[in-house]
Amino acid sequence: MDGLTEIKKDSKEIFKGRIVHLFVDQVELPNGEMSTREVVKHPGAVAVIAVNKEGKLLLVRQYRYPLDGIIYEIPAGKLEPDENPDDSALRELEEETGYRCEKMEKTASFYSSPGFSDELLHVYYTDSLIEGKQHLDQDEFLEVCAVNLEEAVQMVKDHRIYDAKSIYAVQYMQLRQNKNIG
Amino acid sequence: MDGLTEIKKDSKEIFKGRIVHLFVDQVELPNGEMSTREVVKHPGAVAVIAVNKEGKLLLVRQYRYPLDGIIYEIPAGKLEPDENPDDSALRELEEETGYRCEKMEKTASFYSSPGFSDELLHVYYTDSLIEGKQHLDQDEFLEVCAVNLEEAVQMVKDHRIYDAKSIYAVQYMQLRQNKNIG
Repeated sequence: MDGLTEIKKDSKEIFKGRIVHLFVDQVELPNGEMSTREVVKHPGAVAVIAVNKEGKLLLVRQYRYPLDGIIYEIPAGKLEPDENPDDSALRELEEETGYRCEKMEKTASFYSSPGFSDELLHVYYTDSLIEGKQHLDQDEFLEVCAVNLEEAVQMVKDHRIYDAKSIYAVQYMQLRQNKNIG
Repeated sequence: MDGLTEIKKDSKEIFKGRIVHLFVDQVELPNGEMSTREVVKHPGAVAVIAVNKEGKLLLVRQYRYPLDGIIYEIPAGKLEPDENPDDSALRELEEETGYRCEKMEKTASFYSSPGFSDELLHVYYTDSLIEGKQHLDQDEFLEVCAVNLEEAVQMVKDHRIYDAKSIYAVQYMQLRQNKNIG
């Protein structure tokens, strides 16, 4: 044993919704004691750092119910069942922004909140946008805009850009501009 | 109306645990239609980018039950009830790593997963560490290590560092080194 791993002893499904699938599990800790773990299972998600031909970053302006506020985020969405993240990124980019792209590269994958959720987010970069057709989900309302890097950095400071993936995206752009990516 | 905001019409508490507080709400969309929103309410959290006198970044190696894996993260933890984030950051740093610090600055706050949770994470930076005393929670098992920036960048690439806040921290260190922060 590594002295860190916890062993599942029991698992109880609490709720299964459209996004959130909640379990409360009983686990054996490394010292043999028992504890409970609350886990939100999530299908995973994708996000796209999309730069247009003017060198501006595409953002979607959207009301986020959990925060009761409107913020600017990079285009993103949940994986559909059995969907490949690469396909999902292309789909979400076009659905939300109306742009397709010639090629994309993955920049990172990361867990959003590993203390209580298995949500894994895959982030892509593209600067080869081509016109497509926006088609939002029935309950999705958002506005698309494009900002230069200087504006995006300011938007992080004043909390118009206010979520982990979008701040990751702004820092990625800063590092890429400085040629520190690689 | 801004054409984006959703209005809460009903709210039902589904589960209240140690971390996860789950609600399913009925909302009126901007077009007047109704929809449901699943919301995980969270007390908020803090994380600390802590650099020791050798210029190395402190990381905690920890099993994360939702991912069933061991990853390296910057020190972090949930806010206690009515706790100020500044105080929480000092507390979590010492509890997890055994270090206190002379001063800290906040680098950013961001929502972890604004699609379904109101978890807001406050991130701090310090390079003025002083010896304190580690004291972990009863069900918390972790190991502390320190890595230089080059190692940290490699750890992001090979997914040993694999969560949003810690990847943010590595990017922040890269930008700070390049004096692009500010």
